[in-house]
Amino acid sequence: MTKKWVYLASEGNKDMRDLLGGKGAGLAEMTNAGLPVPPSFTITTEACLAYFKEGKQFPAGMWEQVQEAMRKLEEQTGKGFGDPKNPLLVSVRSGARVSMPGMMDTVLNVGLNSETLKGLAELSNNERFAYDAYRRLIAMFGRIVKGLKGELFEHKLDEYKAKTKGGRDTDLTVDMLKEIVRDFKEIYRQNLGEEFPEDVWEQIRQAICAVFDSWFGPNAVTYRRHHKLSDEWGTAVNICTMVFGNMGEDSGTGVAFTRNPNTGENELYGEYLQNAQGEDVVAGIRTPMRIAELERVNPEIYRQFTEVARMLERHYRDMQDVEFTVERGKLWILQTRSGKRTARAAIKIAVDMANEGLITQEEAVARVTPEEVDVMLHPMFDPEAKRAAQERGDMIAVGLNASPGAATGIAVFDAKRAADKAEAGANVILVRPETSPDDVGGMLVSKGVLTQHGGATSHAAVVARGNNLPCVAGCEAITVDPDAACFTIGSRVVREGDTISIDGTTGEVFIGSIPTIDVDLAREVELATLLRWADGIRRLGVYCNADYPQDAARGRAFGAEGIGLCRTEHMFFEADRRPAVVSMILAKTDEERQKYLDQILPFQRADFEGIFKAMDGLPVIIRLLDAPMHEFLPSKESLIEEVTRLRCTGENPEELKKKEQLLETVEAMSEINPMMGLRSVRANIIKSGIAEMQVRAIIQAGCRQAKRGVDVHAEIMIPLVSHVNELKHQYEVVRKVAAEVMREEGVEIDYKFGTMIETPRGALTANQLAEYAEFFSFGTNDLTQMTFGFSRDDAEGKFLLQYVERKILPVNPFQSLDQEGVGQLVEHAVKGGKATRPDIELGICGEHGGDPDSIDFFHRVGLDYVSCSPYRVPVARLAAAQAELRHRGRNG
Amino acid sequence: MTKKWVYLASEGNKDMRDLLGGKGAGLAEMTNAGLPVPPSFTITTEACLAYFKEGKQFPAGMWEQVQEAMRKLEEQTGKGFGDPKNPLLVSVRSGARVSMPGMMDTVLNVGLNSETLKGLAELSNNERFAYDAYRRLIAMFGRIVKGLKGELFEHKLDEYKAKTKGGRDTDLTVDMLKEIVRDFKEIYRQNLGEEFPEDVWEQIRQAICAVFDSWFGPNAVTYRRHHKLSDEWGTAVNICTMVFGNMGEDSGTGVAFTRNPNTGENELYGEYLQNAQGEDVVAGIRTPMRIAELERVNPEIYRQFTEVARMLERHYRDMQDVEFTVERGKLWILQTRSGKRTARAAIKIAVDMANEGLITQEEAVARVTPEEVDVMLHPMFDPEAKRAAQERGDMIAVGLNASPGAATGIAVFDAKRAADKAEAGANVILVRPETSPDDVGGMLVSKGVLTQHGGATSHAAVVARGNNLPCVAGCEAITVDPDAACFTIGSRVVREGDTISIDGTTGEVFIGSIPTIDVDLAREVELATLLRWADGIRRLGVYCNADYPQDAARGRAFGAEGIGLCRTEHMFFEADRRPAVVSMILAKTDEERQKYLDQILPFQRADFEGIFKAMDGLPVIIRLLDAPMHEFLPSKESLIEEVTRLRCTGENPEELKKKEQLLETVEAMSEINPMMGLRSVRANIIKSGIAEMQVRAIIQAGCRQAKRGVDVHAEIMIPLVSHVNELKHQYEVVRKVAAEVMREEGVEIDYKFGTMIETPRGALTANQLAEYAEFFSFGTNDLTQMTFGFSRDDAEGKFLLQYVERKILPVNPFQSLDQEGVGQLVEHAVKGGKATRPDIELGICGEHGGDPDSIDFFHRVGLDYVSCSPYRVPVARLAAAQAELRHRGRNG
Repeated sequence: MTKKWVYLASEGNKDMRDLLGGKGAGLAEMTNAGLPVPPSFTITTEACLAYFKEGKQFPAGMWEQVQEAMRKLEEQTGKGFGDPKNPLLVSVRSGARVSMPGMMDTVLNVGLNSETLKGLAELSNNERFAYDAYRRLIAMFGRIVKGLKGELFEHKLDEYKAKTKGGRDTDLTVDMLKEIVRDFKEIYRQNLGEEFPEDVWEQIRQAICAVFDSWFGPNAVTYRRHHKLSDEWGTAVNICTMVFGNMGEDSGTGVAFTRNPNTGENELYGEYLQNAQGEDVVAGIRTPMRIAELERVNPEIYRQFTEVARMLERHYRDMQDVEFTVERGKLWILQTRSGKRTARAAIKIAVDMANEGLITQEEAVARVTPEEVDVMLHPMFDPEAKRAAQERGDMIAVGLNASPGAATGIAVFDAKRAADKAEAGANVILVRPETSPDDVGGMLVSKGVLTQHGGATSHAAVVARGNNLPCVAGCEAITVDPDAACFTIGSRVVREGDTISIDGTTGEVFIGSIPTIDVDLAREVELATLLRWADGIRRLGVYCNADYPQDAARGRAFGAEGIGLCRTEHMFFEADRRPAVVSMILAKTDEERQKYLDQILPFQRADFEGIFKAMDGLPVIIRLLDAPMHEFLPSKESLIEEVTRLRCTGENPEELKKKEQLLETVEAMSEINPMMGLRSVRANIIKSGIAEMQVRAIIQAGCRQAKRGVDVHAEIMIPLVSHVNELKHQYEVVRKVAAEVMREEGVEIDYKFGTMIETPRGALTANQLAEYAEFFSFGTNDLTQMTFGFSRDDAEGKFLLQYVERKILPVNPFQSLDQEGVGQLVEHAVKGGKATRPDIELGICGEHGGDPDSIDFFHRVGLDYVSCSPYRVPVARLAAAQAELRHRGRNG
Repeated sequence: MTKKWVYLASEGNKDMRDLLGGKGAGLAEMTNAGLPVPPSFTITTEACLAYFKEGKQFPAGMWEQVQEAMRKLEEQTGKGFGDPKNPLLVSVRSGARVSMPGMMDTVLNVGLNSETLKGLAELSNNERFAYDAYRRLIAMFGRIVKGLKGELFEHKLDEYKAKTKGGRDTDLTVDMLKEIVRDFKEIYRQNLGEEFPEDVWEQIRQAICAVFDSWFGPNAVTYRRHHKLSDEWGTAVNICTMVFGNMGEDSGTGVAFTRNPNTGENELYGEYLQNAQGEDVVAGIRTPMRIAELERVNPEIYRQFTEVARMLERHYRDMQDVEFTVERGKLWILQTRSGKRTARAAIKIAVDMANEGLITQEEAVARVTPEEVDVMLHPMFDPEAKRAAQERGDMIAVGLNASPGAATGIAVFDAKRAADKAEAGANVILVRPETSPDDVGGMLVSKGVLTQHGGATSHAAVVARGNNLPCVAGCEAITVDPDAACFTIGSRVVREGDTISIDGTTGEVFIGSIPTIDVDLAREVELATLLRWADGIRRLGVYCNADYPQDAARGRAFGAEGIGLCRTEHMFFEADRRPAVVSMILAKTDEERQKYLDQILPFQRADFEGIFKAMDGLPVIIRLLDAPMHEFLPSKESLIEEVTRLRCTGENPEELKKKEQLLETVEAMSEINPMMGLRSVRANIIKSGIAEMQVRAIIQAGCRQAKRGVDVHAEIMIPLVSHVNELKHQYEVVRKVAAEVMREEGVEIDYKFGTMIETPRGALTANQLAEYAEFFSFGTNDLTQMTFGFSRDDAEGKFLLQYVERKILPVNPFQSLDQEGVGQLVEHAVKGGKATRPDIELGICGEHGGDPDSIDFFHRVGLDYVSCSPYRVPVARLAAAQAELRHRGRNG
């Protein structure tokens, strides 16, 4: 028995990609799902390999099997291949196991010759259509099968088009097309020294050979080399019945989504054009009808299509983007694939489908991307208002969607002026050719940023994303002239002060104002449902970073299960306590310092009381002072300037003396590399009193709230530890002060002692740290800085973005955890911590806590929770659930 | 048979510390070595434990064994215990397995009573001596055995002394001593309600009980708790025959070293006092003779002692510090121990002994400490001149020997003035109450530093050691008044400009100048020999860090086998190339930058040619530019000051404009944490041309020297790599340029490509780096900085020294490698590098390369070489050999 080289669509399925290629397997799958797919069959990849093995000869039996399969197509369609009355036409196309651009295109209309041409003309009642199909076959065959240059045919066509009024394909008359067919055949003969084959079997045989040969065509080989794909796979050949939508009023063609891709509503969404081929829709000759109208125009077709849409969704278990043709009242599905959709639609569709029982809740959770959830959390334009603006023609450009969210404000072209106007109360959109570190101040006070140059990792994009600021970058259509304070697009000029609107989620730029709407999780029913399902799946806890009660409340509303990082620096910066803070830093003796610390204490206590109240029942992890002291003092540079000026003018000797003294102090405190200097736990050890004050404030706040019935879970966290003895020192301080305060307050509260892991040495000696620490919180920002030796402040402006652009780094390690390097330290510390203290609580509070890839890593290494900014909490909830789903099989 | 509770000295040996205690084992060892040791025996620690177990009763048979042993002592000495004619006297003392201060002292003269007293007086022909011995026994017994307060006896003694003219012990007359004996007995009776025991057996019995009881005395218990020693050890009791050097002209006492402890010469060195007890030497009544004189005075004793000294050295295989007594012509060795010696002596003795066959060469190498070698390498005072200064009384104080070396210069009390005077050509000794980071500039230009306060880890000590600068710290005897520009000691005042001399090796401070001598390894025959032996033992190579040909030559003279780190920054700083360097940095375009790089190239090439020539045949590892660019520009602070001044005065608008532009550039380049910013490999990637120029200069230099017959081994090293792609980028640059240059020069040279491992991420991903790097060099300075998150510049001034003082850190990790933390990264990188490239060359070029503890670690983890400053090379050679000896057994 000869080998089986040919499979009818009904004989295959989607798992036979290796043998039938991706396209062949897809056709088989659709066919067997009972979908109305034009009959087809596939010649296997094995046949292709055998063809080459035998010196470009069809392997024994293959041709016979092709002929047999063609007979089946004839039976299924009631047409005859080469039959002048009712001709069967087919397409021939390649299909490897993975899609490979650069391989052979499709040859359509195989089976047309001077005889069958007539049959087609009669059947379609459209001579023009038949000749058009024929001239296309000759050109395609010449080009794709025979390797002629496409220009040979195109130039000829252009000659004819030039003779028409409109100059377009559609302006060609039937007579012209007849002449073109004649001329094309002439071109074919002259260039190839042979006639275009009248024999339809010869057409198909040569087309098959051409597909096989294309496997070793230069484009395909280059593609495979580049993508490291094997030469040993071979390509399949798909032969598929042609169907035509231009066979009369009961024919037509359309494209439709099975659900609304904008809103996710469960309704058909798309367009239909009667008595037309797909290419006519593209050519835009006539306006198609909305798919809903089809119900009125052709209820039967509409009914058929509705049913098929249901079948498609049931079969593929997702919203489908469908190309279809109706040939004389019969619906044919040409192609179907999962449809692109907006974030909102993605969420609604996933949740609806789960509710409909089409997919499981876990599948719904797996299917929505964290980015889609993220988009939902940013302000967006009111959809109606945005549509109206588009219709008015106010949308002037589309750039790169660099940081999501929508914003409206006045255009300002200079960072300093942006800061001034923002301070004066204006909503500002900063517009720059590109941004640099000098612009950061202006960016942070703006509502949004628009740049002419720069990609997704440009300075503007990175800073904007890091600060939750809408940004459209690389909008090359506009020309920004910061000196003239305007930008131009075409003849249009937008000047400083003009109102513009940008949508960082889509990259759109508008003239004028568009109202935005904020997310309200309570009203986003589907999102809330999806996140609830995610909560049921995930193992990782999700906390938020919050320094103020209002942040804590927002985080909680977004689903945070605790505060993973409460920074205490901000409390030192607030205006009402600043004088005491400065005096405390300038204090010459321990006693003097203590005096000012006593003044700061009540402020800190009040801050903590507010946070404990907001997080009633949930853990609150408070980090002791981390910033270097000199951050609270004026800058050395400004003091040098002032002192020099006062010296020159001799104006105010008293002021001069005061400033000189302050400068001396600031100079004594200044550091060459402050990030690695006297700050954090080091300062809290060297300068006694500060940690004591903070612990006192925390425990007092806890005790007092506890007395009012709040369920307090305080966790005191020591930052920047690199040696166990630092932790031991702070452990003793905390234990002593806490015991003292609880005795004074007459109440005990639940509190824990722990440490950040944010120096490489802390990670390397985590086993020792766990002797004192009941919990670790990975500070992956600092850990990344020190592991790479990158100061983020300097690196992002000076080389990091270039590194990412030039692919020296695969990603910005401050956005997504460097699992290869920093990740080793995290894993090492997890193991070390657990070895010493098996029930140690492990979390991460760096920016990576909101990054899905990083969350996946943290899930894998066995952390207990991630903590991120309140707005990222929903994203983290989803990402944590997806991590669990992704690795569930591997663990079980 | 009862257990053996008592061991005669002849029955024990040095390995029986657990049973006989340290002292008992030592006595046994000396006895069995045939040394003339006063006969003795030891009651075991087991007896002590049994004593407590049985409720403070001697275990069965012990007392009988003590009596038996006493009979043996009587036989050996020909004396009788309690014999009024020829009394045997003994000492009774405790002795645990480790020396324990706080346990019982010795009781001397046990066996004296009113009868034997007379025999002793007659035998010694010295009634005064006998009564003096008796009153001492009564007081010691009362105090140590019976727990009476010492003052009871001392006050009485003082009363009698007050009656004499001189007021000293030795002024007491025989009659007075008789009265004192009577009064002491009275005190004893009144306070204890019993008589001082006349029965000599009762004396010894009680003394033994007292030694046992002292094991649980409060001092001993406290000591054991603190040092975590076991209560279960018990103490032994040593009973030893008393010998007396004051029995006539044929008696005497002395202290001697078996070799000269200053020079190491093989000659007896010490003092002898005829007809005297050891305490008389201490009391300083008479001037002792030098031991050499003994040969003349008493040739027989001298002969005996010379022979014993030889025996001692043969037995203990080291130079001994011996206490001895001659009793009526018979030499007794009371104590012997390894003698303290100068560094010079230590080296000479070790080498001589090996040459004499007393010890092996390996033992000689193991016995000299790296510190001793280090001391030899610093300038030292001419020994004659120093002795003369001491004799003149010019030595005014001794402080802490904080950093070795000797220096002479004028005292200056302010860092700024020190810098000025040094610039004017003066040799300056900076004298400060203590130093701070502000003083560093002044320190570095001084010849030495003297401080009143601060320990071995004080700022002054650390900076001085780091810069090879002699330093005496914590010299509390002097009072430094920087405002008055002087220091005082007693009534003496040393003012600014006065010449002083300090010896940082010993801590001595002198008035006036003392000439210093430099080390010349060629003349230090023993040191050279020892190092040659060390070279034969060590596995680690020893390279030196050198930036200039003269450093390279010095390192080579000290035995360096290559250059482990040639920094190229210095070449950029030299005056003749500075303008081109500055222009290169300020260049606005790649082309402009290239122009200036082309100007710098010949300078760099000349530098490298010099170094290759100096290191003919040895490897030279050259690090590409590492410093941040802005280090070559004026400081931001100075520019702000200047610009502000020029603006105020309005004087020179042109200059203002120039400075403003420069300030703008400097501000744009300035970084918050420059150590972790755009420098090193990062700058060499971002700013194209620099690495290319350096590689070109290196390879050109190599080729040209090779053509002149020099054997060139260049190794090009990339600094600060944290990601393999950085290394890959530089790899391609180096390979390309090197190939180009060698083609141009028409000669091939041997060169390698490698990387520093100095970021934690570099260490963590070493397996990847080894794909490009043929060698790793650990930059443990930066690696320590980033692993701890300590900026050394800031940390050492601001908290690190406090950390070490407060024991938060066990050592300064910049001096001795943090094996627990940073060491993990080094080990990880060694494993990773070898896994990828088994023959990878591994070295270390951080400061730790000269630290013996760190060298031991580098030996253990399997590096190939260490590299250190030229002056540390001999130290490293010895330390490397010792590491091999220390771990040889464990590896084999």
